[in-house]
Amino acid sequence: MFSKILIANRGEIALRVQRACREMGIATVAVHSTADADAMHVRLADESLCIGPPLARDSYLNMPALLSAALITGAEAIHPGYGFLSENADFAEMVEAHGLAFIGPSPTHIRMMGDKITAKTTMAELGVPLVPGSDGEVPDVETAMAVARLIGCPVLVKAAAGGGGRGMKVARTLDEVAEAFSTARAEAAAAFGNNAVYIEKYLDKPRHIELQVLGDNYGKVVHFGERDCSLQRRHQKLLEEAGSPGITEAERTALGAIATQALEKFGYRNAGTLEFLYQDGQFAFIEMNTRLQVEHPVTEMVTGVDLVREQIRIAYGEALGYGQSDVRVSGHAIECRITAEDPETFTPSPGTISMFHAPGGLGVRLDSAIYTGYRVPSHYDSLVAKLIVHGRTRPEAIARMHRALEEFAIAGIKTTIPLHLRILADPAFQSGHYDIHWLENFVSGGR
Amino acid sequence: MFSKILIANRGEIALRVQRACREMGIATVAVHSTADADAMHVRLADESLCIGPPLARDSYLNMPALLSAALITGAEAIHPGYGFLSENADFAEMVEAHGLAFIGPSPTHIRMMGDKITAKTTMAELGVPLVPGSDGEVPDVETAMAVARLIGCPVLVKAAAGGGGRGMKVARTLDEVAEAFSTARAEAAAAFGNNAVYIEKYLDKPRHIELQVLGDNYGKVVHFGERDCSLQRRHQKLLEEAGSPGITEAERTALGAIATQALEKFGYRNAGTLEFLYQDGQFAFIEMNTRLQVEHPVTEMVTGVDLVREQIRIAYGEALGYGQSDVRVSGHAIECRITAEDPETFTPSPGTISMFHAPGGLGVRLDSAIYTGYRVPSHYDSLVAKLIVHGRTRPEAIARMHRALEEFAIAGIKTTIPLHLRILADPAFQSGHYDIHWLENFVSGGR
Repeated sequence: MFSKILIANRGEIALRVQRACREMGIATVAVHSTADADAMHVRLADESLCIGPPLARDSYLNMPALLSAALITGAEAIHPGYGFLSENADFAEMVEAHGLAFIGPSPTHIRMMGDKITAKTTMAELGVPLVPGSDGEVPDVETAMAVARLIGCPVLVKAAAGGGGRGMKVARTLDEVAEAFSTARAEAAAAFGNNAVYIEKYLDKPRHIELQVLGDNYGKVVHFGERDCSLQRRHQKLLEEAGSPGITEAERTALGAIATQALEKFGYRNAGTLEFLYQDGQFAFIEMNTRLQVEHPVTEMVTGVDLVREQIRIAYGEALGYGQSDVRVSGHAIECRITAEDPETFTPSPGTISMFHAPGGLGVRLDSAIYTGYRVPSHYDSLVAKLIVHGRTRPEAIARMHRALEEFAIAGIKTTIPLHLRILADPAFQSGHYDIHWLENFVSGGR
Repeated sequence: MFSKILIANRGEIALRVQRACREMGIATVAVHSTADADAMHVRLADESLCIGPPLARDSYLNMPALLSAALITGAEAIHPGYGFLSENADFAEMVEAHGLAFIGPSPTHIRMMGDKITAKTTMAELGVPLVPGSDGEVPDVETAMAVARLIGCPVLVKAAAGGGGRGMKVARTLDEVAEAFSTARAEAAAAFGNNAVYIEKYLDKPRHIELQVLGDNYGKVVHFGERDCSLQRRHQKLLEEAGSPGITEAERTALGAIATQALEKFGYRNAGTLEFLYQDGQFAFIEMNTRLQVEHPVTEMVTGVDLVREQIRIAYGEALGYGQSDVRVSGHAIECRITAEDPETFTPSPGTISMFHAPGGLGVRLDSAIYTGYRVPSHYDSLVAKLIVHGRTRPEAIARMHRALEEFAIAGIKTTIPLHLRILADPAFQSGHYDIHWLENFVSGGR
């Protein structure tokens, strides 16, 4: 097994990867910006190196600095976490070119899935269902109009290189198509340096269902059931569940079979997540994330599998060693993303944590890298804690999450804990009847 | 379901019961001594009442005060936790006489099992194996000598009303029997007000194996697998595992069948634990605890069952609703009892917690009622935290516990965390080859 791994990330995910390494007997190297010198991922690592100033492009996105840190410390592999360089094929290539293992998929597959048009074309060819839409890039407004007429409005114009909701415009009628097209194109060019856009049918009440997979180097791909991540605000997930309250065991099995067969055909390796929209009994592939997701713990809670440990084993060249029938989904898990934001206005609330006390007891897991006295920097993502619970049933998990959130004490900053408590107490949430637009309404004062 | 429960206890177990109540939508009443006004079980309860000064006999053992508190607040049931009044049949009777539910077994069964001689006689009649020994109480030194000759030395002279190692003496040869008998008798009289003693064969290298059971009011008893609690110092358990690394699946099944059949015959209800010594493939019943145990979380981690919730449901009159075949033991769990003691000398170390930060991540559970700024009082048990981990295998659980203990930050008092780290790193512990004498040797500088 690897004897030392460099973790090219910060915050709770750096700590998450460290924990897996430590349990496997692997030494860890932390990297940090000058703003993160006191961060917990630095304090708990076996070694740590400062790689630059606070701005991500000068530190956590600085590929030469990261590579130098790995080479200087004798790390044999790099785990990128999520965000930052985790889906950067150039970085993965550089890591491998220097004789180190990149703990993730092959650069080829990162690149393939990074382009949303290529990803959809590839998956469609392998039999994975898509949302009706354009056949690849839409080069001009005339084609856009033709596609919209064919599939019917409303339609969504999306950037090929997009993510996080940027470069995405809805046209509710044919009259709006031209403007949506040009706006999306302009935003895509500005945000991603690539103005390619494509068009999809806009679904009015879909769920966001995603499937966690792991593939090894020997052609084997296994899935670990679905997550329901429909609770989003501005395309940012807020609360995730495993499994989905909206799909059946039979649907999960069918989706899993289609997805794993497709991925086995092109030899996908390491962790990945296929994202789907689900409405009226139909799944439609939207994109694939070629990395660990923020919400991976809910899958771990219902399957008992340590996904990071599996990523590391696979990157070292080990075979999965088990098959689909060995993966059992048991009970229900929920994750609440707790951010340093005002729970009403979503204004960021960085500052010093004057008190931090974690909830505990049966079925409660906390993934967090903050502590009493820690100063939440303003430079990074506002996620300060992921609270995850497991219950034998969904109602039990909801009751447990409510209890755990009430116990959770964070003082000195505002957090989204009160919002999560409101969501959990809402009858619509409790019934499981929600879609990707539900939270936006809930938050904007619909209730 | 009950709408309000009074919890007649303090510390982590009061919090444990509160958590179950809260998840069930039941309001909680905390009671506390003047020394515990700032305790977390008081802070998190829906209501709280002071029931007296610090000494337990003036507060937590004060039956009229507890009953008054329950009646004043309109509680419908009392959960006794462990220790204090949890195995006091008179208290259980008083509670029931006042029209409240006692969340535990019937007073008759508490009394039956509280007398170790009656317990053994009863269980033997129901087919549960015992350690060879006297047939009940040994009235005089002549009988003691006769028993010792019959079963062969070494023998153990034990107080009928004993517990925690008091009133227990070993006679290694026949020459030592008379003195062991009179010393045990004198200690029993002083400690328990009852000088009855009995004699058992002394086993030189047994494991302590205990079986968790739940019985409902309708004659159904189910077991939840065994715990191995062989790691003891002065008869105090320090680290517990579920399952035992020393017994097989077949042995567990056989023991479970014998035990549940016996308990069903006399209609045992609510939670209970049967304790056995195990050596050379043989189990021998030693006693039954008619309450929740400190180490119950390891069973919860491998079965997914919330034992306190089950206790409450049973006390309310609900049927178990599942059978033995529905109980699945999955993976391995370990609990470390962390006490406010010097890890070398075991001198108590009360004081103010200047910093408290709990470990987190996959498979880690903490049951603790201390927090940054809390002052650990000197009046009570020194237990400050129970750290519990779950892993798919025993080696995974050991690695996870080691990792979690290393993350655990408690400053201001000394704790037994360093001792637990030493135990986990020891090859004998890792191999699973230990017995109830192992820890005593390990601690006394054998290593």
